[in-house]
Amino acid sequence: MPPTDRIREHAGHGAATTVAAQRVRRRLRADRARQLADLLRRQLLTGAFPHGALPHESTLATDYRATRNTVRQALDLLRAEGLVERQPGVGTLVVAQKYPHGLDRLMGLAETLREHGRVTNEVRTMGPVPAPAPVADRLRLPAGADVLYIERLRRLNGLPLSLDLTYVPLDIGTALLTADLEHTDVFRLLEAATGLPLGHAEITLEAVDADAHSAAVLEAPQGAALLMLERLTHLADGRPVDLEFIRFRGDRITMSGHLHRSV
Amino acid sequence: MPPTDRIREHAGHGAATTVAAQRVRRRLRADRARQLADLLRRQLLTGAFPHGALPHESTLATDYRATRNTVRQALDLLRAEGLVERQPGVGTLVVAQKYPHGLDRLMGLAETLREHGRVTNEVRTMGPVPAPAPVADRLRLPAGADVLYIERLRRLNGLPLSLDLTYVPLDIGTALLTADLEHTDVFRLLEAATGLPLGHAEITLEAVDADAHSAAVLEAPQGAALLMLERLTHLADGRPVDLEFIRFRGDRITMSGHLHRSV
Repeated sequence: MPPTDRIREHAGHGAATTVAAQRVRRRLRADRARQLADLLRRQLLTGAFPHGALPHESTLATDYRATRNTVRQALDLLRAEGLVERQPGVGTLVVAQKYPHGLDRLMGLAETLREHGRVTNEVRTMGPVPAPAPVADRLRLPAGADVLYIERLRRLNGLPLSLDLTYVPLDIGTALLTADLEHTDVFRLLEAATGLPLGHAEITLEAVDADAHSAAVLEAPQGAALLMLERLTHLADGRPVDLEFIRFRGDRITMSGHLHRSV
Repeated sequence: MPPTDRIREHAGHGAATTVAAQRVRRRLRADRARQLADLLRRQLLTGAFPHGALPHESTLATDYRATRNTVRQALDLLRAEGLVERQPGVGTLVVAQKYPHGLDRLMGLAETLREHGRVTNEVRTMGPVPAPAPVADRLRLPAGADVLYIERLRRLNGLPLSLDLTYVPLDIGTALLTADLEHTDVFRLLEAATGLPLGHAEITLEAVDADAHSAAVLEAPQGAALLMLERLTHLADGRPVDLEFIRFRGDRITMSGHLHRSV
């Protein structure tokens, strides 16, 4: 018997506590639904359900020792996230299109998603700009030196995936002005332009609510959760050459990797 | 002159294109605002502004070669995220409380946030449950074997930070039943209970919209962006001992680390 059911019984004692008991029951059902949704979420994202169909509610209820109400509530949570859809007469189908971005190695988008389809980039803006102070600082350039600014909407198999703002020092950036940015990762172009491999990057990840304009560009609902990545990439010789601010659609990307206890 | 201003001029040519030009102008201003907000965001999160006060709008406009309108719109974006507040007569103040969670080493919350304050854990549920199939599978236990299930609301300096769902094999979990979970990371307790250091973890990060119940528990607005971490942690001998589903408030945490091009 799951612990929540045990607590539920406990909460049911005494007539005077009926309202409180109802509240506790609701809370416990919501807790159980979240618990179940988390277990199903990973399975559906990793393709564990044959033909993309979830087992019947009653099967899920038996398998997870949950009530039908809890199962329904768990499926509602997954539906609200756009991971599944109910089809009358058919059942619950996986509709998630979440792609795994590697966190173990420094890779460009097309590289890391190679198995999942074709990445194309719509260049929204590109041109030299005087580096704002924090950009100059991080790219170790003199204040006001020109940098190449690029803004791209990136798609996987035609679906908007991320909006990327990129700053590159102009001595390297000039080579990018005539490159095939629509079909090539900036990482590959940087390595080609400098003849050096990339070395490492400092990254920061955050979850943020999409502002109205970013949401519109990414074709996501306003306020949708975005995975925001700030990344400063260095060449193998240590020179910082690429400062990026990337907004990924939260419903289209996961970041996966390994952490070790001792470094 | 920034490229957007150049494009703006260009878009202004021709009387018949007035409406289209206005649309382009609005889009370009929104793009410029996002660009500026991204630059200010990092500075304010890393404490770059003395006394937590942003420079005056006109100073920002000069420093970033932006119009006052763009500056205002950028500050609006940061305000909508809860990172700054406007105080009449004072200016724009940093109110962000975003804490950096390390991504380079496998660490518990109290460990990684040590410099930032005191982590306390409210244990919402704890007890043995029969392992659901995907849990048994990942912890390499026989189907239906009991596991310890723990649900904690974690706070930093009293503020809700994350909601953690944890599964631990019962042979190790028993030691946790009587431990000081309120003030100790599960990682430390696992190492104490087994006499072994932890080894590595497989992690997956996502940005998700908070469902109503999770939002209420975390005292966040419904639909607020959450940073969701799924983590399977192994002992140094390779045994998986800790499966966790963690929902961080997106407005309270950043994840930072390093990536390398070659592994």
